[in-house]
Amino acid sequence: MIIVMEEGATEAQVQAVIDRLVEMDFTIHRSTGMVHTVLGGVGPEERVNPVEFELMEGVRECRRIMSPYKLASRHFRPSGTLISVGGIAIGGERVTIMAGPCGVESRDQIHRAAEIVARAGARVLRAGAFKARSSPYGFQGLGEDGLRLIREAADAHSLLVVSEVMDASQVALIASCADILQVGARNMENYNLLRELSKLRKPVLLKRGLAATVEEWLLSAEYILSGGNYDVILCERGIRTFESSTRNTMDISAIPVVKKLSHLPIVADPSHGTGRRDHVIPMARAAVAAGADGLLVEVHPDPDHALSDGAQSLRPEQFAELMDQLRIIAPAVGRTL
Amino acid sequence: MIIVMEEGATEAQVQAVIDRLVEMDFTIHRSTGMVHTVLGGVGPEERVNPVEFELMEGVRECRRIMSPYKLASRHFRPSGTLISVGGIAIGGERVTIMAGPCGVESRDQIHRAAEIVARAGARVLRAGAFKARSSPYGFQGLGEDGLRLIREAADAHSLLVVSEVMDASQVALIASCADILQVGARNMENYNLLRELSKLRKPVLLKRGLAATVEEWLLSAEYILSGGNYDVILCERGIRTFESSTRNTMDISAIPVVKKLSHLPIVADPSHGTGRRDHVIPMARAAVAAGADGLLVEVHPDPDHALSDGAQSLRPEQFAELMDQLRIIAPAVGRTL
Amino acid sequence: MIIVMEEGATEAQVQAVIDRLVEMDFTIHRSTGMVHTVLGGVGPEERVNPVEFELMEGVRECRRIMSPYKLASRHFRPSGTLISVGGIAIGGERVTIMAGPCGVESRDQIHRAAEIVARAGARVLRAGAFKARSSPYGFQGLGEDGLRLIREAADAHSLLVVSEVMDASQVALIASCADILQVGARNMENYNLLRELSKLRKPVLLKRGLAATVEEWLLSAEYILSGGNYDVILCERGIRTFESSTRNTMDISAIPVVKKLSHLPIVADPSHGTGRRDHVIPMARAAVAAGADGLLVEVHPDPDHALSDGAQSLRPEQFAELMDQLRIIAPAVGRTL
Amino acid sequence: MIIVMEEGATEAQVQAVIDRLVEMDFTIHRSTGMVHTVLGGVGPEERVNPVEFELMEGVRECRRIMSPYKLASRHFRPSGTLISVGGIAIGGERVTIMAGPCGVESRDQIHRAAEIVARAGARVLRAGAFKARSSPYGFQGLGEDGLRLIREAADAHSLLVVSEVMDASQVALIASCADILQVGARNMENYNLLRELSKLRKPVLLKRGLAATVEEWLLSAEYILSGGNYDVILCERGIRTFESSTRNTMDISAIPVVKKLSHLPIVADPSHGTGRRDHVIPMARAAVAAGADGLLVEVHPDPDHALSDGAQSLRPEQFAELMDQLRIIAPAVGRTL
Repeated sequence: MIIVMEEGATEAQVQAVIDRLVEMDFTIHRSTGMVHTVLGGVGPEERVNPVEFELMEGVRECRRIMSPYKLASRHFRPSGTLISVGGIAIGGERVTIMAGPCGVESRDQIHRAAEIVARAGARVLRAGAFKARSSPYGFQGLGEDGLRLIREAADAHSLLVVSEVMDASQVALIASCADILQVGARNMENYNLLRELSKLRKPVLLKRGLAATVEEWLLSAEYILSGGNYDVILCERGIRTFESSTRNTMDISAIPVVKKLSHLPIVADPSHGTGRRDHVIPMARAAVAAGADGLLVEVHPDPDHALSDGAQSLRPEQFAELMDQLRIIAPAVGRTL
Repeated sequence: MIIVMEEGATEAQVQAVIDRLVEMDFTIHRSTGMVHTVLGGVGPEERVNPVEFELMEGVRECRRIMSPYKLASRHFRPSGTLISVGGIAIGGERVTIMAGPCGVESRDQIHRAAEIVARAGARVLRAGAFKARSSPYGFQGLGEDGLRLIREAADAHSLLVVSEVMDASQVALIASCADILQVGARNMENYNLLRELSKLRKPVLLKRGLAATVEEWLLSAEYILSGGNYDVILCERGIRTFESSTRNTMDISAIPVVKKLSHLPIVADPSHGTGRRDHVIPMARAAVAAGADGLLVEVHPDPDHALSDGAQSLRPEQFAELMDQLRIIAPAVGRTL
Repeated sequence: MIIVMEEGATEAQVQAVIDRLVEMDFTIHRSTGMVHTVLGGVGPEERVNPVEFELMEGVRECRRIMSPYKLASRHFRPSGTLISVGGIAIGGERVTIMAGPCGVESRDQIHRAAEIVARAGARVLRAGAFKARSSPYGFQGLGEDGLRLIREAADAHSLLVVSEVMDASQVALIASCADILQVGARNMENYNLLRELSKLRKPVLLKRGLAATVEEWLLSAEYILSGGNYDVILCERGIRTFESSTRNTMDISAIPVVKKLSHLPIVADPSHGTGRRDHVIPMARAAVAAGADGLLVEVHPDPDHALSDGAQSLRPEQFAELMDQLRIIAPAVGRTL
Repeated sequence: MIIVMEEGATEAQVQAVIDRLVEMDFTIHRSTGMVHTVLGGVGPEERVNPVEFELMEGVRECRRIMSPYKLASRHFRPSGTLISVGGIAIGGERVTIMAGPCGVESRDQIHRAAEIVARAGARVLRAGAFKARSSPYGFQGLGEDGLRLIREAADAHSLLVVSEVMDASQVALIASCADILQVGARNMENYNLLRELSKLRKPVLLKRGLAATVEEWLLSAEYILSGGNYDVILCERGIRTFESSTRNTMDISAIPVVKKLSHLPIVADPSHGTGRRDHVIPMARAAVAAGADGLLVEVHPDPDHALSDGAQSLRPEQFAELMDQLRIIAPAVGRTL
């Protein structure tokens, strides 16, 4: 920890800070400059809120030195993490496309969706069986029956399954059918859920919260890693900003930022990131061009009659066209589709 | 719903929009202007995502007319809601002060806290028994034992209890000890939890999410009201902005905005809103001056040794001083403390 | 204009709104629904602040129908604008790369920079002669001498010149040397400057303000167009958000949004958008993949010794590599470099 | 400057950083820990962009130690600055109310406005003579004639004058009539303007930019102070956030933050901060309760017919009522009106 004293801080003020650091089991190194006294402290940083020191008389600033996450940091695995699941490798040379409808609506719908995305080259079928709708009147999902239908449709087309888990009590159920468990943006800091997932031995796709910094997002990943589950896939899906012409602002720059800070694979969800079908395609291309390891895209056999998220679901032919464009782009970042 | 067509939209484009509205059970009123054709639709707005229409050819904009919330709107109860609980009335002439430590740490600590806040004039003891800590190593709370200690301390000083419920499975337990159940900012859109609370007959204090607009916040309140629980207290606690000198930016203007849009009482939490003890006091004053119906403030007998949130907890003498200042301010808004 | 009355608004309230609209020269159409009365007004919307109506008793919401910009809207020129300048066409099939140092530092430096970017395939040399530094001690630019050096270096390598104009008094001077005049983000709403530029017959590159919505940005473009200068190039360079791991958050989605709303070409500036050399390259790729008509990139012969913006300037070999990657990506969006 | 190396940074990497620091005239102190090597550098920090070091191999983080502003910091004048102008003292025990219309529209209007605000207890008349309107069709102000009318009206009611200066060329003109020169939010980083104002010997009221952090705002103040003009009054007027129910989000917490960081007086502008008359009053109360040294409020004799900003202008009787409320609140912060 680094503590910078105010210009003109008194010796008594400096000493009070040192005393508090010592009380907290820190070893202190003091550097007295012409202008500022700077204290370096080595100790249990993770237990200290820097603001506590900033509230002390004569302190200008207190900052942690240690990264708040360790296991999620690039340094922990400099070569990057490759997540192997059901014959595919996420984070490797191939860009992994996960596609499908927002929710499973019927056997016919999910089978058609699976066929469409498989034919176009996706490797993972995405679909939700449980929905957390903001309106109590909206479509609530097919539940367990839905999960079985997703699995069946995926198997029929040699796809893996990624599906969302809404809370800790659902982990076992979703894990019984899905290959990858998805944590939604609203649950990024649901620690009960993260704890359950940390005990699992299946990959977790962790969406970024709407108001989460990259650091907070990596801290949530750390929570899962620290429980022993090393297979975390990050997913950028837009942050909340003042701009209102898109539902969220997709933070494409989070892709290179995460690549530098962490070894974990990162995919992008342009469907939730934009909320509009016509913007999904350019943002999907942008994400792959920026270095994303994959995409999570909503595709529906008939978006105009989808029970949820129709406006942001690609039509089958749009998805096929997007895949063709991605095949052109991928080599620019040394990858294939 | 209002749909504004683009300048120069063709008749076929207008007709396609009309057809779709009819298919969705809307009654349409068409107004053909010199520049724009405008369509007004009366029907099941709540089932329509306006973006679906904005994606159609020739459409410039689609907007809902109906407020997305009904029961939470000021129109539903123009004179405002008064929540009566344990002999106090929240939303009335008296400003309700809820104060206490972040978490219960020991019998002694919570009793001392209760004594301090009661003596200074608070009516409700706030304290948490369960903690959702971002770090797996932080203090996790005393659980059920803690709840009993909070109740005991409150009773000893004739205080009511407000305590946080972390998920749906905890509702019954917390309700057995607390007079008011608090929903944290991260849970503002946890619909399973909101649904459980809507069945309860105890007041719910609903914190605003870090990235939630006032409208989204009122929608979460609506969720609780629509289940039959009309006693919802809103709590402003800061939103996430680009400014980093405070942990969050407390949106004091949300107080008059909510007063205009809704009949529900609104309180403010300057402790989480600022994250720093020295800024809590001015922001507490500001909230009352802006018309808040109450405050939720962290006070600890010995903040320097608090197990959580010490930096934002007021010292006993600071809280007493704040109460004195609030007694001066309250009459300016026609209230007492 | 559309005015939605509150549920239960009285007839007198409705009439007061109608009276005010009539007084303001609006023609009114009234639609009385079961729940809401809706008033449509046709008249001089641009002179009305909708909030004035929202403050009237019984009014729930007031919205403009007309787009606040006309000349900048896609409808005005559905096929898009192609800006021809010095033999190149911006907004056409070729992606236009504008590159060079932040500021001209010496004849040698700007000649080397011009050679580097020309050889790699850029068509326009970017460099500033005047600097608005936030610190009074920073490098302030070479002024008029610098302008001449930029022109000379560009001519020597068959490049065009884009250079920033800091205020209205500089327009003639910059226009005498540069082919394209750049308006910085801080000046996006400097109406004196925009007015001068609107009288010019040279293209203007208009950067988006740090806190500007897409609509406000297009309004600034409208200001220039309305004075008779139709050659405006928009430039996305990042907006301010809560995320602090990058200096700004580059809003790549603004590219497809602008393409839908406006006919004007849009380029992206990943150097200012990220502030870090290592993130410039992925974001440059993303912008082209998203459909940008060009890029504005800082390249310096020796960034480690640049007098300004060294950290965000690409090294010569990095720029060459980026250009190679862009040549792969461009065909995915039907373009060449 | 503090540079924290990555865990596992090599000795060569550490040495490269040291070499660069030495080359830049820094004196280095090295601290080699078990996990991280930390380098402390004393030297010309203001000339270094920390990102340059963060881009070097093996560097995790680079931070400045020195405050980027000196003259504006609280340490420079711990007791706070009192600005004496025309018999009033801004920053002292009395809260200074500056009120009046957005713009001067006619002799009659400005005289009536002056009378209204003087009678209610304001000490300074605010009004603009030049307007920077976003629409080329809006009211552009009365110019020099307007300035004279403002002065005349203020003198007739023993008020001082604060009026906005739009660019550097206007400084002499505005200074000839106004007692305090106002810098608008859009000009907060107009360094040409700030430089001119720094040579003046009249107080400057510096509004916070819509996207400016408190630190950036204080840097703009520093610019003026460093030129020799020590009389800077800061003015909070709302920042841009995702919340759209108010035009801007007034950052009331900036008041205590600035009080801690700087010795300069700070006032608040609730009119621009909210954009709606009905929210101006609660936010004005909140600002004074939070410790603001004054207010800048728009008041118009007849807001419904104001040529600009009518929706956010208080009616005369509302202003009088606000003043009465503020007289109650001020003693809570040890002040009078």
